[in-house]
Amino acid sequence: MSEMLILKNVRPWGEAAIDLTIADGRIASESSASSLAEAQTIDGKGAIILPGFFEAHTHLDKTLFGMPWNHNNVGSTLIDKITNERNSKARLGLDPARQSARQVALSVAHGTTHIRSHVDIDTEHGLNGVLGVMATREKYADVIDLEIVAFPQSGMLIRQGTKELMDEALSLGAEVVGGLDPCSMDLDPKGHLDVVFALAEKHGKPIDIHLHELGELGAFSMRLIIDRTRAHAMAGKVTVSHAFCLGHNDYLAIGNLLDELADAGIAIMTTGPAGYPCPPLIRTLDAGITVCSGSDGIRDCWSPYGNADMLERAIFLGMRNDLDRDDEIRRAVEVVTTGGAAVMGRQDYGLAVGDAADLVLIEGETLAEAVVSRRARPLVMKRGKVVAREGAALFETE
Amino acid sequence: MSEMLILKNVRPWGEAAIDLTIADGRIASESSASSLAEAQTIDGKGAIILPGFFEAHTHLDKTLFGMPWNHNNVGSTLIDKITNERNSKARLGLDPARQSARQVALSVAHGTTHIRSHVDIDTEHGLNGVLGVMATREKYADVIDLEIVAFPQSGMLIRQGTKELMDEALSLGAEVVGGLDPCSMDLDPKGHLDVVFALAEKHGKPIDIHLHELGELGAFSMRLIIDRTRAHAMAGKVTVSHAFCLGHNDYLAIGNLLDELADAGIAIMTTGPAGYPCPPLIRTLDAGITVCSGSDGIRDCWSPYGNADMLERAIFLGMRNDLDRDDEIRRAVEVVTTGGAAVMGRQDYGLAVGDAADLVLIEGETLAEAVVSRRARPLVMKRGKVVAREGAALFETE
Ligand SMILES: [Zn+2]
Ligand SMILES: [Zn+2]
Repeated sequence: MSEMLILKNVRPWGEAAIDLTIADGRIASESSASSLAEAQTIDGKGAIILPGFFEAHTHLDKTLFGMPWNHNNVGSTLIDKITNERNSKARLGLDPARQSARQVALSVAHGTTHIRSHVDIDTEHGLNGVLGVMATREKYADVIDLEIVAFPQSGMLIRQGTKELMDEALSLGAEVVGGLDPCSMDLDPKGHLDVVFALAEKHGKPIDIHLHELGELGAFSMRLIIDRTRAHAMAGKVTVSHAFCLGHNDYLAIGNLLDELADAGIAIMTTGPAGYPCPPLIRTLDAGITVCSGSDGIRDCWSPYGNADMLERAIFLGMRNDLDRDDEIRRAVEVVTTGGAAVMGRQDYGLAVGDAADLVLIEGETLAEAVVSRRARPLVMKRGKVVAREGAALFETE
Repeated sequence: MSEMLILKNVRPWGEAAIDLTIADGRIASESSASSLAEAQTIDGKGAIILPGFFEAHTHLDKTLFGMPWNHNNVGSTLIDKITNERNSKARLGLDPARQSARQVALSVAHGTTHIRSHVDIDTEHGLNGVLGVMATREKYADVIDLEIVAFPQSGMLIRQGTKELMDEALSLGAEVVGGLDPCSMDLDPKGHLDVVFALAEKHGKPIDIHLHELGELGAFSMRLIIDRTRAHAMAGKVTVSHAFCLGHNDYLAIGNLLDELADAGIAIMTTGPAGYPCPPLIRTLDAGITVCSGSDGIRDCWSPYGNADMLERAIFLGMRNDLDRDDEIRRAVEVVTTGGAAVMGRQDYGLAVGDAADLVLIEGETLAEAVVSRRARPLVMKRGKVVAREGAALFETE
């Protein structure tokens, strides 16, 4: 017997109100004509309805959310932060399964229905993080779709044995091959990227590389990634996260790089970072590049900020890129919805009949007004089941 | 008879809990020993207590908050935005008195006890804005200290008659002389600044100049402002708002400019803008410069963003300047409290005995945790009277 539910009086993307019939976890029709006796009805009260948000870049394994406040007095270099974090995990008693579950609940409360999480792999903690997040992926499979990126946070080649751990994680079920600053971390961009692309080929899995390298250095690494993406015929399967180098102020060089990225079928993830150069959002989209977004680390050993709200992330994208017009704000919302879906390869995503009923209601006069006001979400639905109401997840975590 | 009130169990700046006795609108003692019968007691429940926030740069006269959503499809240049705004005011029915009152309520709800508002003056709308905000200043004198900057938004010299309107506004009681991009607006930096400083001298009032000009152009205008501040002996009485040129990436030039600003006694206002270069916060403070912050325009014809929450502003300052450490976050909080008080010349501001009881409670484990979590403020007090509770102002506006 099919579970059926009618969601009345909701406005897709802020347009005219409709009723949606949900059956078997999917959108069954754009009307409520089938007023079957067993159908449950939810009054959307004119709220805007969107397909669920994509948190396309975070680090579930190492949030400190819900733990005692971590007094941060860490140095300012990248290596300071990576070293401090690796050394702090045991001291703080950071449990990746428990912590990832807490962040999942936070995400779901805000309307996120899909998460791509990078998870640390290093020779000190081995696959602890991956196993913990896998436990969460299984335990919370009904409330979130969760994708794991095997992420060599402490370097791939400089710490012998990391490559083998990466291989093992991918065999165990990590969905994506991660990489990190090919020049700066391993001091061997060719070696680093050869391993990343070899692992992707061996396991038949996509790639998502953190690239913080700035200016010409980042552009150099980017060109190496573009070359390999073409050589391995991986168009549509490679994402570059952060891509700070695309924020470099060189109109001709960046224009060329954006065209190359579009042609190679490489996607870009940007958080809209206030403190760093970053890809110019509208120009990147206009180049034909798929763009997704994410919270990156939330309240972790690196940074105390973040709350997993992807609607607020749309505001950050907007403020970072000077998006004041309503049509521009809509594009920021598309980044945190359809952009993420494209990167994670979800075909049945959207508000059309047949799409998975992964949905979020947001309150607002118009889409832009709803974004800037970021009120608590009245309702979040995962595969046709209500998983959060009034800004709170309907399930418990440890 | 003195009104007395005891605020129990509050943690100044997140330190150990104390009780505060408030009498006659001031902090009377740091204990509750004087348990007079008539004293009213409020349980702070261990919340952190700070002196009230300073909104040191906003535009009360032109927020659209509480009005029907304004669909924004304006062009991207500064002149597009200024022209659109000047032309939209009548069309939208923007009432400066009503709108400024709405934003005051929003500010107070978030813990702001002092506001410096620039108010448009131009030959089309005359002193409408100033008169409207003056009405709000008078009507809400018990809940907010409000300072008006006479602001030539559409240019000082290019629109004949503006100078005279500025003069009139200052005679009527605007507290501060405003200015705007001396090079770009009037195409006559000497002429523009001569008028600004002459008005300041005539009225014996301080100066606050919007300076968006970038790089070398902004640095040029800044040097003209420094020269005049010295010539007019106005140390401690001049603020440069935005000062985007201080975000120029030239270590020696900026270092020199910061030293000159400190020496000339010029304060800087920065919103921590995500999309623009801006003064590097820690370095600016370390140079010995007084720094304050503000929301700038809130939901107006320029931009749909903003909510008047100065605790969230501390987060924006933190994210913009990469402030991850607890001690750095504290400095951001000082900018939105003591920094604003210094710019607005408030001597009786703080948590010491004798200071005005302008106070805000914020919930959090530590000061930094309270900032990043930005929960609704349990209590806001103005001169010893409770003006907001649980994130809501206790007074009505139109
Ligand atoms: Zn990351
Ligand atoms: Zn302004």
